[in-house]
Amino acid sequence: MNVRIGQRTQHFRTVTFDARTNRVVLIEQRLLPHRFELIETTDFRETALAIKDMIVRGAGAIGATAAYGLAQGARAFRGRGLTKFSKHIERVCETLKAARPTAVDPVNAMTCIREEMSAGETVEEQQSIALAAAEEFANEDVQHCEAIGRHGAKLIRNGMRVLTHCNAGWLAFVDFGSATAPLYAAQAKGKKFHVFCDETRPRCQGATLTAWELAQQGISHEVIADNAAGFLMSRGEIDLVIVGSDRTLGRTGEVANKIGTYTKAVLAHRHGIPFYVAIPLSTIDWNLKSGRDIPIEERDASEVLGAWGTTAKGKREYVRVANPTSDARNPSFDVTPPGLITGIITPEGVFRPRELWKNRALLQKG
Amino acid sequence: MNVRIGQRTQHFRTVTFDARTNRVVLIEQRLLPHRFELIETTDFRETALAIKDMIVRGAGAIGATAAYGLAQGARAFRGRGLTKFSKHIERVCETLKAARPTAVDPVNAMTCIREEMSAGETVEEQQSIALAAAEEFANEDVQHCEAIGRHGAKLIRNGMRVLTHCNAGWLAFVDFGSATAPLYAAQAKGKKFHVFCDETRPRCQGATLTAWELAQQGISHEVIADNAAGFLMSRGEIDLVIVGSDRTLGRTGEVANKIGTYTKAVLAHRHGIPFYVAIPLSTIDWNLKSGRDIPIEERDASEVLGAWGTTAKGKREYVRVANPTSDARNPSFDVTPPGLITGIITPEGVFRPRELWKNRALLQKG
Repeated sequence: MNVRIGQRTQHFRTVTFDARTNRVVLIEQRLLPHRFELIETTDFRETALAIKDMIVRGAGAIGATAAYGLAQGARAFRGRGLTKFSKHIERVCETLKAARPTAVDPVNAMTCIREEMSAGETVEEQQSIALAAAEEFANEDVQHCEAIGRHGAKLIRNGMRVLTHCNAGWLAFVDFGSATAPLYAAQAKGKKFHVFCDETRPRCQGATLTAWELAQQGISHEVIADNAAGFLMSRGEIDLVIVGSDRTLGRTGEVANKIGTYTKAVLAHRHGIPFYVAIPLSTIDWNLKSGRDIPIEERDASEVLGAWGTTAKGKREYVRVANPTSDARNPSFDVTPPGLITGIITPEGVFRPRELWKNRALLQKG
Repeated sequence: MNVRIGQRTQHFRTVTFDARTNRVVLIEQRLLPHRFELIETTDFRETALAIKDMIVRGAGAIGATAAYGLAQGARAFRGRGLTKFSKHIERVCETLKAARPTAVDPVNAMTCIREEMSAGETVEEQQSIALAAAEEFANEDVQHCEAIGRHGAKLIRNGMRVLTHCNAGWLAFVDFGSATAPLYAAQAKGKKFHVFCDETRPRCQGATLTAWELAQQGISHEVIADNAAGFLMSRGEIDLVIVGSDRTLGRTGEVANKIGTYTKAVLAHRHGIPFYVAIPLSTIDWNLKSGRDIPIEERDASEVLGAWGTTAKGKREYVRVANPTSDARNPSFDVTPPGLITGIITPEGVFRPRELWKNRALLQKG
């Protein structure tokens, strides 16, 4: 999507590949929203490190980064013969996979690339297939997000006030994002609306990344404390909620997403406000039988006990906010039951959460 | 309540008066939770400034501070005759009132002191009554909070996990607090329980003041992001919610309190978790006919866009967290309807919110 650089506005993807130099080009997301910089990785180890160090984050974005990283590693092979090449590819995949060991998207992406590569009969053929397949993978991520946007934009009417939580934006994918895709598509159709961004404590991805995205795109928005959405709903100031999801259960329609999502769903339900979840098909888990079985990561207490920000002198600092002798609990995700969800916006259309399972033939092809 | 100073534990009130030196002694609350210091004001102007600059804050605490400030001003009078004395007292009251123009507690406190003073027939008599009346006012605040604690402690059973929001603690009163009083009383009875403190963005009074209070008192507790309570409730990890109130409508049972209170009430209701509001009688508004008429202060956006804390080097700093080019909405209070409230804990006992009005004869005497 757009980034404003000085007086100009320029289009970027979160991750691209420069075939001439064999480099993966990434937005250095750790500097956002305070500085916009691109970073280029020169080999697959650097690409793995960029995933590990969260220069790039978000399911779609790390999937595409791993896909490009595999192509990058394949194209850098200087040895001879398919046997040695295969061993090299194995090493490349292990390295990229180990960067975020619990993430499923890099693994799926690389499996898909390798399947296509196996059609090549020489090292050179496989190298060239790897690049084409990685490009195709990234382009498909963009097309899926565009399709989410197309279906979701129909829900947004002129003058609406939309609440979103955390960052399920283009920075988490290759472009467009999931929860943000309907906003960008509605804007492209000329619709006028306003977005409230939950700051999304403790890591504040709403106040930082989502607010940055919307500002770059020129979409009217305000940050609110996570505590404020209930009040705004009670005063009739929110018309629609759209969030993303880290894992959606195909069997039950339960949605795991950033901590606080469930709270917003409960509030929206009480106030009769439509609550939508926007997801690519890769997010659907067709195996788990209950949201209770989704492991909920408990992250470091320091995230809750303080905050990262920029001082008046422009320095990035962590400040301890809480009482120095107190500890914190920090569950990072929660699970929203299907009864609180109006619809799931997918690239294949909008479904009621309990209808995912009966549409699995359509939805599993993605 | 208790404060740990080195190895010792010492009892303090939030505000006291030193009759020998004619000084008001206050806990410098702006330094908490990072440093505990007392501050002494030498005349009523300094006392007014301490209220204005929020060295002391919280309804009960600023009421008692104004009462002591009036006594301090009265006792400093060096002129002659009741007429000049009365003019002086008028000036003292105006100065103290102007320190927090919208607060009702300082005004009520001073009205009460002046009524008693009018029984004195000389300047000296009125001066001495002023001091006695101010002491009585502060002691009554303590007794009211103790009574809230006595009634509320019955709700707390061994092993319970209690959620509280913001700071309605002893720092906001002269001692014991409102929402915290049941916790302190239950502890005194030897009950064991655990408290979750909502950090309470944007000003984080839960993470700072409430967590500090509980740590000083040796009560088991953890800070949580405001987003996390819904998840903990869904997992059966919260048994009881107790909050304070800035204004409770005697006619309707609606409760205005710090932003986010309403959200916790909605969640508690969904999960069948008892939700109590602890208040001194002075908090009840017997006039307003609807919560819609309660003015909701919108505070500065900077509170939402960043956070105050302590750097690794021990320096107090404000850091900007949000995207630099984004703005914020910052409503500071919300209104919880009576249907979501299990009971109102008052010094006169626990009432269902809709029963306040029919018990007004009992409750208005306070």
